[in-house]
Amino acid sequence: MTQPGPIPRRTIQRFSRYLRELERLERDGVETTSSAELGELVGAGDAQVRRDLAFFGQLGQRGVGYSVKTLIEALRATLSLNHEWRVVLVGAGNVGRALCTYKVFRERGFRIVALFDNDPRKEGLTWARLKVQPMRELKKTVREQGIELGVIAVPPEAAQDVADQLVAAGVRGILNFAPARVRVPPGVQVCSADLAVEMEQLAFLVANADRQVPQRSNQRR
Amino acid sequence: MTQPGPIPRRTIQRFSRYLRELERLERDGVETTSSAELGELVGAGDAQVRRDLAFFGQLGQRGVGYSVKTLIEALRATLSLNHEWRVVLVGAGNVGRALCTYKVFRERGFRIVALFDNDPRKEGLTWARLKVQPMRELKKTVREQGIELGVIAVPPEAAQDVADQLVAAGVRGILNFAPARVRVPPGVQVCSADLAVEMEQLAFLVANADRQVPQRSNQRR
Repeated sequence: MTQPGPIPRRTIQRFSRYLRELERLERDGVETTSSAELGELVGAGDAQVRRDLAFFGQLGQRGVGYSVKTLIEALRATLSLNHEWRVVLVGAGNVGRALCTYKVFRERGFRIVALFDNDPRKEGLTWARLKVQPMRELKKTVREQGIELGVIAVPPEAAQDVADQLVAAGVRGILNFAPARVRVPPGVQVCSADLAVEMEQLAFLVANADRQVPQRSNQRR
Repeated sequence: MTQPGPIPRRTIQRFSRYLRELERLERDGVETTSSAELGELVGAGDAQVRRDLAFFGQLGQRGVGYSVKTLIEALRATLSLNHEWRVVLVGAGNVGRALCTYKVFRERGFRIVALFDNDPRKEGLTWARLKVQPMRELKKTVREQGIELGVIAVPPEAAQDVADQLVAAGVRGILNFAPARVRVPPGVQVCSADLAVEMEQLAFLVANADRQVPQRSNQRR
């Protein structure tokens, strides 16, 4: 990375979206792009895109634009996607089942390698070639499999306990699908993927379509 | 609503989270709370909470704090949750199956009342008491069932076409689970729930744990 200092989390989200669109351009055989085109694709302004990409140093060329390939490499390196992330999923319910088979995770380098549930009736079931393991084996499996990330897909009342067990087992980051906040010690990262919050956002926007903050398009992010 | 003008989208997200925590306090028999306690529960600063809640006018009382019940009512009204939202889901794959049975949606007033898929082999299957319908029936069903919101759970390459059909059928808001941007005309709202973007965020945070924007806690939002 060519620029020191912290990167705002909104910028990181846009990095993911730029990368997705750039890979699509590459598949379509496009070799160069512009900040205006990228902005249009992700729903951000021209100037915003230039500011974001300045993070990687001087990658754009006046009159030529950005090399799609170079940008993809820079974004993949920054997002640490040139690395297979090994993931443990806790919660063999409906959400867990969908995540186990979620092709997009695999395509982006996230490999769910173990599946846990505390329900003894689920022990030994096999989903997407993963056997449901009991929680008492979590620590051992995380260590043996070199797992770095954990996904929580359990009911809200169980989320904190699962987070504590994941932290004790040594994961460094948690993606929390439960509609509950979980606390973790410093050094462990948490992202929340609370689907009902997303739905509530949408409902609010629809109900208040006339009084929103203006956006460059109707796309939220 | 007591204060005119636009509300930033980040604030709306926090409204959802305040509401969730307040409802939990209410279930635990707690009658009053403070901006400090609420901030602690959602991972926001004291001053931020006071600024957010000022949106509802003078609800807090010095030395007493906020009435949990009053705040819940104000938040539910603002988020338009005193209303059952009727939702159509397009995409009878693994993600769609999880969403059909996602209890938290129902608890928050979002009722999936119809399920569509363009795969003729899925036609007539029944999930969570919903029969998979062919896309040609979408317009009629949206109208007859008074559906306002649509959820897209199809592969990325089909997302725009489904969005177009939802808009043509008359939905006012779309929650898009496909990892692809969709464009909609003015007056229709879109929120993206791109699970891989969430995972990429987490990976970035873990890989760059030493160079992030400092947060009040490790919780992202």
